[in-house]
Amino acid sequence: MKTDTRFTIVYQIEAGDQAKAENFVRKIGTEQSVEISLELVPPEARSSLPEFSPVEQFGENKWKARISYPMSVVGDDPTQFLNVLFGNISLLNGIVISDVSDNIFNELLNGPSFGIEGIRNSCGAMKRAISSTALKPVGLSAEELADRAFLFSKGGIDIIKDDHGLTNQQSATFEERVSLCTKAVRRGEQQSGKKSLYFPNITTSPQNLIERFEKAVELGADGVLVCPQLTGLESLLSIASLKEIPVMAHPAFSGSYIQANHGFSPELFYGKIWRAFGADAVIYPNTGGRFPFSVEQCHQLNRQMRGHFCSFKPTFPVPAGGIKLETVKEWMDSYGNDIILLIGGSLYNQKSGIESAAREFQQLLENYGK
Amino acid sequence: MKTDTRFTIVYQIEAGDQAKAENFVRKIGTEQSVEISLELVPPEARSSLPEFSPVEQFGENKWKARISYPMSVVGDDPTQFLNVLFGNISLLNGIVISDVSDNIFNELLNGPSFGIEGIRNSCGAMKRAISSTALKPVGLSAEELADRAFLFSKGGIDIIKDDHGLTNQQSATFEERVSLCTKAVRRGEQQSGKKSLYFPNITTSPQNLIERFEKAVELGADGVLVCPQLTGLESLLSIASLKEIPVMAHPAFSGSYIQANHGFSPELFYGKIWRAFGADAVIYPNTGGRFPFSVEQCHQLNRQMRGHFCSFKPTFPVPAGGIKLETVKEWMDSYGNDIILLIGGSLYNQKSGIESAAREFQQLLENYGK
Repeated sequence: MKTDTRFTIVYQIEAGDQAKAENFVRKIGTEQSVEISLELVPPEARSSLPEFSPVEQFGENKWKARISYPMSVVGDDPTQFLNVLFGNISLLNGIVISDVSDNIFNELLNGPSFGIEGIRNSCGAMKRAISSTALKPVGLSAEELADRAFLFSKGGIDIIKDDHGLTNQQSATFEERVSLCTKAVRRGEQQSGKKSLYFPNITTSPQNLIERFEKAVELGADGVLVCPQLTGLESLLSIASLKEIPVMAHPAFSGSYIQANHGFSPELFYGKIWRAFGADAVIYPNTGGRFPFSVEQCHQLNRQMRGHFCSFKPTFPVPAGGIKLETVKEWMDSYGNDIILLIGGSLYNQKSGIESAAREFQQLLENYGK
Repeated sequence: MKTDTRFTIVYQIEAGDQAKAENFVRKIGTEQSVEISLELVPPEARSSLPEFSPVEQFGENKWKARISYPMSVVGDDPTQFLNVLFGNISLLNGIVISDVSDNIFNELLNGPSFGIEGIRNSCGAMKRAISSTALKPVGLSAEELADRAFLFSKGGIDIIKDDHGLTNQQSATFEERVSLCTKAVRRGEQQSGKKSLYFPNITTSPQNLIERFEKAVELGADGVLVCPQLTGLESLLSIASLKEIPVMAHPAFSGSYIQANHGFSPELFYGKIWRAFGADAVIYPNTGGRFPFSVEQCHQLNRQMRGHFCSFKPTFPVPAGGIKLETVKEWMDSYGNDIILLIGGSLYNQKSGIESAAREFQQLLENYGK
């Protein structure tokens, strides 16, 4: 039963003084709802108006503001929710959305269908950290990628995913790649004696995504990889709602929404919004890797993805980048067991070969803490 | 016939010296193609490698760089093209893509189905500027919005579009709104004696977008409004390819990709990419309005949307914001006739009422230069 009629968005904005901050906040609230001067809103539409709380200063030229919006402005449309969050104001500078009240997520969305526990069940590993790697590079044939998948599986890796740049290239078309890699992973399992999962990348036109998802299921894939900001975020909801296999979300094309003074805080964006839209696991750029996340941001992301949020299942955090075999233990000490550690390039860079590197990685996780 | 095998992306990057700039460029090229250290790319995949031109300094710590990529890395997938453009590097700071060679657009995309001439044909106005306004605010009933549509049409406005925040709210559900507003615009035409077009907003889940588009066509809408960055950009291509009615693209949720030192130059993003994906008209935030575009940016956008680009039809530029009845002539002097001037709030703010304000706006355009 719908009991709340309003939800709240928390903003961090830049403004020289309190009056400017308050003006800015009124501009935001208007822009994101009625899009017309408040005095021009007719009485019949006044139930759509935003409500403003006093701004609070939290640093030099930095203000925290809360605006409450009627749920009726969003209606039942998750894409319209994104529009109310950051539609027109994406064209402005100096606005970061740091939080959104849980009730709107609860009203509109369902969270992951599998989450941490579901992926653990598929892996047959209920407590320890999960290993993951990526099939690459683009340009290899489906057979060559499947050869690599076989070696990773034989070495015991828990989740073997496609690079997110593997789509439907001539060198390895989607169907051939998924078919051969699935079979290769199954063959590898026979040698390793343990379960390995294959998550092909299904990112493509939003209108073809469901078909590609269903094809992956049909060919025996254990999960899928998708880049929600390339397919439209509600595409994530569409495939998660099918509840067939887990969905791992990749941050390609999404970084523009988590800039330092523009967009969303990373923990809200990936940890609440993507979780609410159905991501069972979310890849994020690990600190010390190729992208500028701080270790504290990574911890915040882990906490947000794992912690209580509506009645949604927890999402598996997947730090990627900057993790090497030599540093796996340090990352485990830092991040704990509820983590999927993704090592890509570093496994390809071992003199002992892919299979041996995979086995070493897997052993590190299985023996951690013993 | 496919003759080119590579295409080029031009970047503007920030780096302290030439060596750092060159390193940065190699990082970008690797990240956006093979995603693995170049020395780990096996011979079978070397045809996927990027190629680098020497960097050129164009300001303090500012460098221009060109990277060519094999077309085979994109394949036939426009969403993968977006990924190669700005997928992983969206997570970095200090990269602006300023241009992309035409051949990749030519290979993958078709541009607008109607463009400037098609919209002019629908309006019955082959030379003069086109007037446009927005139905608002959210919260009004379908009947109340239709009343406004009738007055705008009676006053002679060429294109009456929904506010992009009107989706499927209880206050005015999609089907009822489109049905009533279409009929209201037809009634208004009978009074004005001239054509008026109605463009409902169809923005919603990518998976429901085609259905909503077809429903708009069925109910007699003359075009549609869509926010491509909310629906996934390739959704724009999907509806434009149907070639049924013109598509006006709205920049909500897209501003994050055109930040000052992050993303794309606005003229590339809206003027080339959105045009190539099929936008017949593109709304952009006019200078002097509520958003920080400069007048020079607006002129560049107009030039890019109208000018020669592959064999694509020109896209109608739609500056919005900051245009008042008193300043219409100045904007016309500045922007010329191939423009759709969008006035929203200002028409609601006339003491003489909506119909009279609409008529005054329309007369200004019809009499301009006479």
